[in-house]
Amino acid sequence: MNNTLEDILIKMKKASVFLANASAEVKNKALERIAENLRNSSAKIFNENKKDIENAEKNKIAFPLLKRLNFDEKKLGVVIDGISSLVKLDDPVNKTITKTQIDDDMILKKITVPIGLIGVIFESRPDALIQIATLCLKSGNCVILKGGSEALYTNRILSKIIYDSITESDSVFMDTMHLIETRQDVKEILKYDRYINLIIPRGSNEFVKYIQDNSSIPVLGHAEGICHVYIDKYADIDKAVAIAFDAKTQYVAVCNAMETLLVHKDIAGVYLPKLKAELDKKNVVIKGDKLAKKILPDIEDAGEEDWRTEYLDYILSVKLVNDIDEAISHINHYGSAHTDSIVTENRENMDKFASFVDSASVMINCSTRFADGYIYGLGAEVGISTNKIHARGPVGLDGLIIYKYILEGSGNIVADYYEGEKKFKHKIL
Amino acid sequence: MNNTLEDILIKMKKASVFLANASAEVKNKALERIAENLRNSSAKIFNENKKDIENAEKNKIAFPLLKRLNFDEKKLGVVIDGISSLVKLDDPVNKTITKTQIDDDMILKKITVPIGLIGVIFESRPDALIQIATLCLKSGNCVILKGGSEALYTNRILSKIIYDSITESDSVFMDTMHLIETRQDVKEILKYDRYINLIIPRGSNEFVKYIQDNSSIPVLGHAEGICHVYIDKYADIDKAVAIAFDAKTQYVAVCNAMETLLVHKDIAGVYLPKLKAELDKKNVVIKGDKLAKKILPDIEDAGEEDWRTEYLDYILSVKLVNDIDEAISHINHYGSAHTDSIVTENRENMDKFASFVDSASVMINCSTRFADGYIYGLGAEVGISTNKIHARGPVGLDGLIIYKYILEGSGNIVADYYEGEKKFKHKIL
Repeated sequence: MNNTLEDILIKMKKASVFLANASAEVKNKALERIAENLRNSSAKIFNENKKDIENAEKNKIAFPLLKRLNFDEKKLGVVIDGISSLVKLDDPVNKTITKTQIDDDMILKKITVPIGLIGVIFESRPDALIQIATLCLKSGNCVILKGGSEALYTNRILSKIIYDSITESDSVFMDTMHLIETRQDVKEILKYDRYINLIIPRGSNEFVKYIQDNSSIPVLGHAEGICHVYIDKYADIDKAVAIAFDAKTQYVAVCNAMETLLVHKDIAGVYLPKLKAELDKKNVVIKGDKLAKKILPDIEDAGEEDWRTEYLDYILSVKLVNDIDEAISHINHYGSAHTDSIVTENRENMDKFASFVDSASVMINCSTRFADGYIYGLGAEVGISTNKIHARGPVGLDGLIIYKYILEGSGNIVADYYEGEKKFKHKIL
Repeated sequence: MNNTLEDILIKMKKASVFLANASAEVKNKALERIAENLRNSSAKIFNENKKDIENAEKNKIAFPLLKRLNFDEKKLGVVIDGISSLVKLDDPVNKTITKTQIDDDMILKKITVPIGLIGVIFESRPDALIQIATLCLKSGNCVILKGGSEALYTNRILSKIIYDSITESDSVFMDTMHLIETRQDVKEILKYDRYINLIIPRGSNEFVKYIQDNSSIPVLGHAEGICHVYIDKYADIDKAVAIAFDAKTQYVAVCNAMETLLVHKDIAGVYLPKLKAELDKKNVVIKGDKLAKKILPDIEDAGEEDWRTEYLDYILSVKLVNDIDEAISHINHYGSAHTDSIVTENRENMDKFASFVDSASVMINCSTRFADGYIYGLGAEVGISTNKIHARGPVGLDGLIIYKYILEGSGNIVADYYEGEKKFKHKIL
């Protein structure tokens, strides 16, 4: 008899309490076993991946997607290195955050614990499955995985290898991971807020909105990345050209790529022609407001709709601003609070921009493309969040952790404090 | 011309960026001004409160609610003391959490910032309005307040005094606070996820579920408080009687009161008659499973439905368990992950219970009624959360804070790292 999805979730919820109490040693041993078995099964993995690639080619899938779908020796090497780094990271669970003497005979501890059961829905990169599964394991969380359907065969073999590795390593890992494969299953898990504590959807704006609108499970993710670079009056022109070029063209299809460039009017006449000369090498379509078009007459028109558009393509909208305040207002109004950058040599303007731009990552004199969990030193990321609660920006192990309070007394009752003579001490230990 | 609610929210969102940058000094001065003006306006406040009380009496509102609604010299004194404590607390904003050298010329800082604009919907306690408004101010958050309609006049005068105090104190507080009064307004704000970053609903289970089901704004709160006390085989009988009596009867209408008592079968014969003798003094209705009824034959039957019921009344369900594991399973299955307590003198069982009970607050040898922001030393609380993300248990200033990343470089582009020779350093500073 087959288990229903709900049966599986019930088992996973039960397992989550035991996984939460697994020691760092047990978790690291399991991670090492995963790395070893992935290495030993590489031929089998590449064979399954070939099936996905062949199907994708039959379905005439676009080249960038095909490139992401491809899982080869190099990508396997990167994820295995990633697992080794993860093993070396401090265990994030069971750390004392605060300790307070509430009374002479009563102590409160606030300690880190895993969130519990997390659902992650991700795009068609098989390496994402391994990164997410191992981050969840290290942080003591059970995980429901749903990958892109194009990667069906690769995801199946990878999740089988991972699950077999961990359950052979220790029985505490039974029922801590489960791969779902259909949209119907995704729809079904959204209603189980009593088992699932967090959903992390990675994907299109529409998809994230769909999840938010159809579930009362908390959602961590980013709807879109409308990232800006602001070239201040006091910018170094060479740095400003290099940063804008990198932010726009180094990888156009990602959420931390620049979509709108804001330029101080006093520097635009010198700056924009130099930038355009670089962007032309990559055939970037430039769209500008009226003032930008006075400097670059041949570019297309940009309007209200452009300031709200995430192109994810070789397209850039350009707007001139009167001062840094106008730049900040524009970013806070039209941006998606993901990642925004200022280029300036003026300390006051750097600080103003960093303080008043209300985004998860604010960059000073560097590219928006640096907003990334690996670059930030988080090991890896389960995603990038534009939420304003729990976790913001690239989300690594810390974002998979919450805390619990443990109050240890010796027979204490509140009546002695509220109706009697006892007083709370509140001494931080 | 009147502002629409959306106009107000747009202004508040803009104001939130400035409030986020207000100094500790400016915020504390405003808090002191609030305390002073509340003190000076006490006659006016009590007069408005009298109108609410009279209306409530006309509408034959239940006595406990009337008691909560009443706002007198004593309650005013408590909230004014609370404001003084809040002034003394460390400013939670703009603290550096981590600092990492990403490369020789690129430093990443993770700093605390306010969440932004928070909606708090609370019950008919006028003191709650003052506590919530001042916690939001101290943490640099704009706040939309909606109190119980029974407290209409009191809430109006209190929010007017607070808003006038802060805007006279500094213009940075313009548009940082707004009182809404109707259910229609609550319904309307739920759709504005682009302005409001967090909703904190305090109230009934049904009400919190309604908010969760009708908004994609993140919700922080607790649906219900089904709290347990487990009397272990190794309990000290006197402590166990005192703790269970306190947890059940000290204040029955609150979320951290005990609803179900679990008793180890080996101690139940001695323990339950002693506890019953105490509970009888408060006329507590006891409902038991079959084994409990063997010891206390006169009590009512308890069944499946009782284990899921938050009575908020002088009613207690009792179940005998074979061991601590059964107690933990019962709590994780039927509980609401709010607050659960063990009474035992056995160290191993204390630790097991604290580790495996998956609740926001786990109590050892003390009453569940201690789960409270003031008692935990948080100053005050905006609510208690049974979420597993962002903030758990009593939520004070820390729960109103998030972080942002600031990456300061000197012209850095990712192409130099991904396509060139540069390497990330990742040195924690």
